[in-house]
Amino acid sequence: MAIIKNNNSVSHSKDGNTTGKVITCKAAVAWGPAQPLVVEEILVDPPQKMEVRIKILFTSICQTDLGVWLGKNEAQNVYPRIFGHEASGIVESVGEGVEDMKAGDHVVPIFNGECGDCVFCKSKTSNLCKKFRVDPLKNVMVNDGKTRFWTKQGEPIYHFLNTSTFSEYTVVDSANVVKIDPNAPLKTMTLLSCGVSTGLGAAWNTANVQEGSTVAVFGLGAVGLAVVEGARSRGASRIVGIDINSDKLSRGISMGVTDIINPLELHKPVHEEISEILEGGVDFSFECAGNLNVLREAFLSTHEGWGLTVLLGIHSAPKTLPIHPMELFCGRRIIGSVFGDFKGKTQLPQFAKQCMHGAVKLDEFITHELPFSEINQAFQLLIDGKSLRCILHL
Amino acid sequence: MAIIKNNNSVSHSKDGNTTGKVITCKAAVAWGPAQPLVVEEILVDPPQKMEVRIKILFTSICQTDLGVWLGKNEAQNVYPRIFGHEASGIVESVGEGVEDMKAGDHVVPIFNGECGDCVFCKSKTSNLCKKFRVDPLKNVMVNDGKTRFWTKQGEPIYHFLNTSTFSEYTVVDSANVVKIDPNAPLKTMTLLSCGVSTGLGAAWNTANVQEGSTVAVFGLGAVGLAVVEGARSRGASRIVGIDINSDKLSRGISMGVTDIINPLELHKPVHEEISEILEGGVDFSFECAGNLNVLREAFLSTHEGWGLTVLLGIHSAPKTLPIHPMELFCGRRIIGSVFGDFKGKTQLPQFAKQCMHGAVKLDEFITHELPFSEINQAFQLLIDGKSLRCILHL
Repeated sequence: MAIIKNNNSVSHSKDGNTTGKVITCKAAVAWGPAQPLVVEEILVDPPQKMEVRIKILFTSICQTDLGVWLGKNEAQNVYPRIFGHEASGIVESVGEGVEDMKAGDHVVPIFNGECGDCVFCKSKTSNLCKKFRVDPLKNVMVNDGKTRFWTKQGEPIYHFLNTSTFSEYTVVDSANVVKIDPNAPLKTMTLLSCGVSTGLGAAWNTANVQEGSTVAVFGLGAVGLAVVEGARSRGASRIVGIDINSDKLSRGISMGVTDIINPLELHKPVHEEISEILEGGVDFSFECAGNLNVLREAFLSTHEGWGLTVLLGIHSAPKTLPIHPMELFCGRRIIGSVFGDFKGKTQLPQFAKQCMHGAVKLDEFITHELPFSEINQAFQLLIDGKSLRCILHL
Repeated sequence: MAIIKNNNSVSHSKDGNTTGKVITCKAAVAWGPAQPLVVEEILVDPPQKMEVRIKILFTSICQTDLGVWLGKNEAQNVYPRIFGHEASGIVESVGEGVEDMKAGDHVVPIFNGECGDCVFCKSKTSNLCKKFRVDPLKNVMVNDGKTRFWTKQGEPIYHFLNTSTFSEYTVVDSANVVKIDPNAPLKTMTLLSCGVSTGLGAAWNTANVQEGSTVAVFGLGAVGLAVVEGARSRGASRIVGIDINSDKLSRGISMGVTDIINPLELHKPVHEEISEILEGGVDFSFECAGNLNVLREAFLSTHEGWGLTVLLGIHSAPKTLPIHPMELFCGRRIIGSVFGDFKGKTQLPQFAKQCMHGAVKLDEFITHELPFSEINQAFQLLIDGKSLRCILHL
């Protein structure tokens, strides 16, 4: 690595007041694809202009972390790197120009930012900020194209998904931080940082599920179950849950799924079964599995004429949509949903309040809790399909 | 052909009152793929229950007729057959149970019917009637699975697209016939039967183009120009027309296109050019070319975050959409549009009135007129890209 940081010119925190100083703290550093993360001491620079340094209190692992950790997409293989994008914490200090947050504020980092000024942020119909949207290839700060993390030897450590939350301290663009009610329980608010917002928002915002709607959810991981929760809270009349893991199907029932299908136990395509039990298909299907065959089943499971398939799963294989152009003439539609179509900074504070008042059952998504030092075990729980969310305590 | 009609039991028209009798008239019969149509005498049965027999006064040729005539899709190769689905005429007689039309009414046949009773017809969001929607493989009447056309030798002649308008008389399900204002000029009303409704409705109903919207139309045939007319009449601020035929581009300008692109004269992909001249892309693109490469350009030409591509072209090749699933996460959408999302029987009478009052420039779509006997020449004009619509007088 050619870039070596000159540490002589920076002051380290020794007296407890860390503002403007480099912080030495622990982080779980990825050194190569599928290698166990190494929890080690790193250096974290102070936030620059329009940046925020956050003391992370809780973080959890999402399938996107898992996919990148496995190194499936070579273009993303940049090391050393700090993964993690689902978290909650407290503002340690803010950089120049940050006016909507101050030290001590309770915050949730969001991988899909909102600058408030670009053509997307000013549009009512998009939550894809031009500058701070999801970009899995991005690994430095927007400000100066540099990292804020360093090894103790002075090597840069790269960022991930605008957030890098597997660290006691992280630096994030203020566009990627949402201030929430200080009375909100930070541990469960972690879930709003990605999975729950993504799934629930897909049902609420992207699909706009209505009372009496019929829904099929393909893949009952955390995001899929968040879709279920979104559909349930909107009054969907039927929620079909599809998964090949019977434990997940059982959990689905406890969270509002009305009909379950295990494709491994079915002797016909899933869409045929759904068409039969729901007279032509569902109003909305959600693909949360990241599998093209599943995507096609999800597409065909909706009712002709108005069915909408919402794409949530990550499809890293360079294959095109398994849909024939002429099939679009049957009136079925397909649409992608990022971060549940929530505009993070504008809408998440209110969503957090709704959650505080019990509109959404957040607790059921936390199946495990571990100390941060056991992060590799948390990865294994997700790989084994045993956990929905394992909250790591920092 | 095994089925031979017994003509002994039917009475033929001799006294001018044809109700309930078999009519002998001329039709342009297709005897095989890409063979010139044969204008010959045929027999037309009386309408059965819920059917209407129409005296066709005008008909024209659409690309769909052309594609089937060329025999591109083997599954559709059923002969002898009467093509044609864009027409206007006068009701000759109606079958049992038809109450919304009577002999003498001015009508327009519609290939995409509306029964009014099915789950689609009762839905506000779909115009795909369960029983009488477009079905290119259908070639007999719904009632009894038989044809109403016969050769003079008693062989059945098959139907096409619920309409078969290349005949002086045709029998159509009443769900596929729209009664229009008797003062509407029948010749131009022919265009409402397919092309103009399809294109204009795609802009009005499917895309819902607004004042100030930006639009790109790929393929400036009759349907594409109808999209242009729909966008113009809604007050679109920019209408980009794309075609490899410079005559069509010139015609586009005369009909409201504000920017033209000839891909053959451009040294970069069309979507890059559009992104440059329209700061990120158009709000709506319309694919009216039936070409997958064009479809991809149309998709990429829309603005991220909210761009909508409306698919109008026929793609008979068994290839899937040239779009990667992850590309849907950029907020671009794609949707198919059939018959401009008009519910034919409900909405076309009012649309016809709007046309009578000049809301739409119908006359510009009629570039040629010929007697019915010269139908093969009219096909050639369309093949050569010389005509938009050639109206055949019966």
